[in-house]
Amino acid sequence: MTTPPAAYLALERQFARRAGLQGALGILNWDSRTMMPAASAAARADQVAALEGAIHAALLDPRVDDWLDSAAGNAHLLDDWQRANLTEMRREHRLATAVPADLVEANARDAARCEVVWRTAKARNDYGLLLPHLRQVLAHQREIAAANAAVLDCGLYDALHEIYEPGSRVADYGPIFDDYAAFLPGFLAEVEAVQDQEPAPAPFQGLFDVTAQRELVQRLAGVLGFAGRVDQSLHAFCGGATGDVRITTRLDPDNFFKALKSGLHEAGHALYEMGRPAAWAAQPVGLARGLAVHESQSLTFDMQVGRHPRFLEWLAPQLAAAFGGQGVAWTADNLRRRFRRVERSFIRVDADEVTYPAHVILRWRLEQALIQGAMDLADLPDAWNQGMRELLGITPPDTAMGCLQDIHWPSGAWGYFPTYTLGAMMAAQLFQAALTAMPDLPDRLARGDFAGLVAWLGENVHRWGRYLSTRDMMVRATGKPLDAGIFKAHLRARYL
Amino acid sequence: MTTPPAAYLALERQFARRAGLQGALGILNWDSRTMMPAASAAARADQVAALEGAIHAALLDPRVDDWLDSAAGNAHLLDDWQRANLTEMRREHRLATAVPADLVEANARDAARCEVVWRTAKARNDYGLLLPHLRQVLAHQREIAAANAAVLDCGLYDALHEIYEPGSRVADYGPIFDDYAAFLPGFLAEVEAVQDQEPAPAPFQGLFDVTAQRELVQRLAGVLGFAGRVDQSLHAFCGGATGDVRITTRLDPDNFFKALKSGLHEAGHALYEMGRPAAWAAQPVGLARGLAVHESQSLTFDMQVGRHPRFLEWLAPQLAAAFGGQGVAWTADNLRRRFRRVERSFIRVDADEVTYPAHVILRWRLEQALIQGAMDLADLPDAWNQGMRELLGITPPDTAMGCLQDIHWPSGAWGYFPTYTLGAMMAAQLFQAALTAMPDLPDRLARGDFAGLVAWLGENVHRWGRYLSTRDMMVRATGKPLDAGIFKAHLRARYL
Repeated sequence: MTTPPAAYLALERQFARRAGLQGALGILNWDSRTMMPAASAAARADQVAALEGAIHAALLDPRVDDWLDSAAGNAHLLDDWQRANLTEMRREHRLATAVPADLVEANARDAARCEVVWRTAKARNDYGLLLPHLRQVLAHQREIAAANAAVLDCGLYDALHEIYEPGSRVADYGPIFDDYAAFLPGFLAEVEAVQDQEPAPAPFQGLFDVTAQRELVQRLAGVLGFAGRVDQSLHAFCGGATGDVRITTRLDPDNFFKALKSGLHEAGHALYEMGRPAAWAAQPVGLARGLAVHESQSLTFDMQVGRHPRFLEWLAPQLAAAFGGQGVAWTADNLRRRFRRVERSFIRVDADEVTYPAHVILRWRLEQALIQGAMDLADLPDAWNQGMRELLGITPPDTAMGCLQDIHWPSGAWGYFPTYTLGAMMAAQLFQAALTAMPDLPDRLARGDFAGLVAWLGENVHRWGRYLSTRDMMVRATGKPLDAGIFKAHLRARYL
Repeated sequence: MTTPPAAYLALERQFARRAGLQGALGILNWDSRTMMPAASAAARADQVAALEGAIHAALLDPRVDDWLDSAAGNAHLLDDWQRANLTEMRREHRLATAVPADLVEANARDAARCEVVWRTAKARNDYGLLLPHLRQVLAHQREIAAANAAVLDCGLYDALHEIYEPGSRVADYGPIFDDYAAFLPGFLAEVEAVQDQEPAPAPFQGLFDVTAQRELVQRLAGVLGFAGRVDQSLHAFCGGATGDVRITTRLDPDNFFKALKSGLHEAGHALYEMGRPAAWAAQPVGLARGLAVHESQSLTFDMQVGRHPRFLEWLAPQLAAAFGGQGVAWTADNLRRRFRRVERSFIRVDADEVTYPAHVILRWRLEQALIQGAMDLADLPDAWNQGMRELLGITPPDTAMGCLQDIHWPSGAWGYFPTYTLGAMMAAQLFQAALTAMPDLPDRLARGDFAGLVAWLGENVHRWGRYLSTRDMMVRATGKPLDAGIFKAHLRARYL
């Protein structure tokens, strides 16, 4: 075995230091949403800004440039993982240096301000209030897109989406989204016809002890293999740091389904974070592949497993025991009926598995037009409503239920939305492959035995980090690149 | 008003960024001791090392040197606080650059390892196991002392103590410590004679609900004016960050006095942190003066207020209500008797107000000899026991009860111990001055009204940050520099 060149080893040390700072930032962000008193928000903003500056500075260090050049010249002395790591280092460095520091700062400042205005605008249903601030944010995003596109040699929209799912391009997934948009109206009508024949699920009424809800989430996550912290927050998330992954859950006394869903969802994210290659945990090649792949892991447990009829056989008595539930509502069959309800609705986060992609496709189409300059922000509310009519046949009553509903655009997250639906489609395909590999997987789910599935995901997804591209990972795991036909077949099987 | 020169403003920005990173580190250290799963310790060590590296790098930036020179040349354009801030910046920069980076790293690494060995050595009462590791730590400390002494122009021991209480010198407080060592044997005999005449305090027996203990601490801290987080940890501490001060408490079901004492103590620290000058919160001149002054603030509430007979009139019914206590044990008089018990004992952290300084003086004498090379570490156990006989007339049965008891030396905190007793003496002097300024202070304490005392401390200690030296602060607040006679008079009044 040859010794890696000194420049490459210097890069590993620099990126490991940066990973340490990123871990610190992860813990701080977790604290902000779980522990921090509200009065400390200004102090926290200073800490986060200083930390983000130090993380950025680690790549701007002029020695990094020299090391990258030198290591590239000696790439034949590296093994395959080191070479893949060097590729990811170059990518991170290119993106970090593509955007001028003053643009990074202006974008962060204006997006933070816009997000604050958005909260008021949404509450007052006043798009006009948001518009001038959103214009600033969009202007910065278009500049960032242009800067990234120049170094990535790709389109403007791809250059933003790249930040969230490296290597993912509209040319690849755009036809899949358009196909789904065409498929949906007919399919939805079929599903609704079936649904109309079925008795409505028995309701779950009463108050559900939040301590019992939290214990349920902790127990479910534990059964899946997650032993880290489980805390409460307003919006559930998986966060923390490498080696200290933490999840949170929403606790609503009126509705334990939020905690159940978020517990399965965030545990799926956590298992991915815990399963990344340990030897490369502090290096770019050891990171999660991207946010679409990440979403595929959360949705495997949230949607593929979490609503699987055999899993519900195991879950139903767990729920009844946790909340002292009795009667017909607490049967596996009633849970199944509840989970397969489909509805044309205005709010993305409350949407079901079938209509959710329509919400994503709407936003994806609109943000492409806005980033490319083909549409003006003044026209957004009308374009939104028009899109909703085309995709779901409904018209939002106001902008709060329409284009003001999501935090993404005001907070500067443009190009993010496709990861949700790409993740849902990948999850269906991966679950299908796991079923082929383990024909008794449904029986295992019915026994609450998840070890086989988690091991399969670890072997086929988690352990690869960024060593494989998303496409290569999917081909290796499932025999082919992303195939939306598998997702549609899954929907047909579950809802028709 | 003139405009401060650009170099000075650049320094303010650089130090503010550093303060943001230090705040992040404070939150991480809080998390390590309250929230972090034990399995995450290795990941946390990487995060902390990266953060400490970034904090250090902020001062090593070569531009800082130029800015300091340029700002010093234009110091006439600065106002008094800015000038004091520049002085503190120069001091921090001098100390940060005095010690070579590889010595900083070797010290951190070997001290971390030595601390781990110490836990085993203490448990096994095996000084020989610790000795080679402690030799390494001491060797590093002597090198650091020499490096600091060269830039500070002071003695080797002062050069380490400076890190904890800037400007404090053996030449100033050494005679005070020696005087106390001479005073103690006779005074202790007098106290014991009085104590022998007094009935023993009625015991507090049973189990004390830890939730009630924690609520008591939260309520007490709240009455004093602290509204931040109160959590549980193995050892109580005040931590967090500027603008997000957090305290913890020990909760022992057998003994609520630990929680009570730590609550008052840490709230005193927290009030100091909260009262630092807000306009300078992110600048060196806005920091707490030093750890001796810090300890004076915690001991004001822990010892001066917390064991004051009039305060106990207010506290007694609070305790009885918190724990459903009934009978003679829960009277103010019994509390007073319990709090004035004095005992010659081996363990510093359990020592009473009268004998505590002897534990400190012993360590102070020994660490001076070790740092100056006048004593070999192999002779430490014997020298320790000899010192205990001289100061308190008792001999530890083993090294676990002797020189192995404290974490300070193994973990690399040399020159720290004097701050405990300097703080106790300052607290007595400051409380005396507050009594002179507010003759009705005892009546206020008996009503649970602490606003006047907290305001007096804010006006005379907290708001000055590092603008005044410790000596000038004491002179301004009390009319004279540290005067141990006031501490001795306080002890006579309370214990004779």
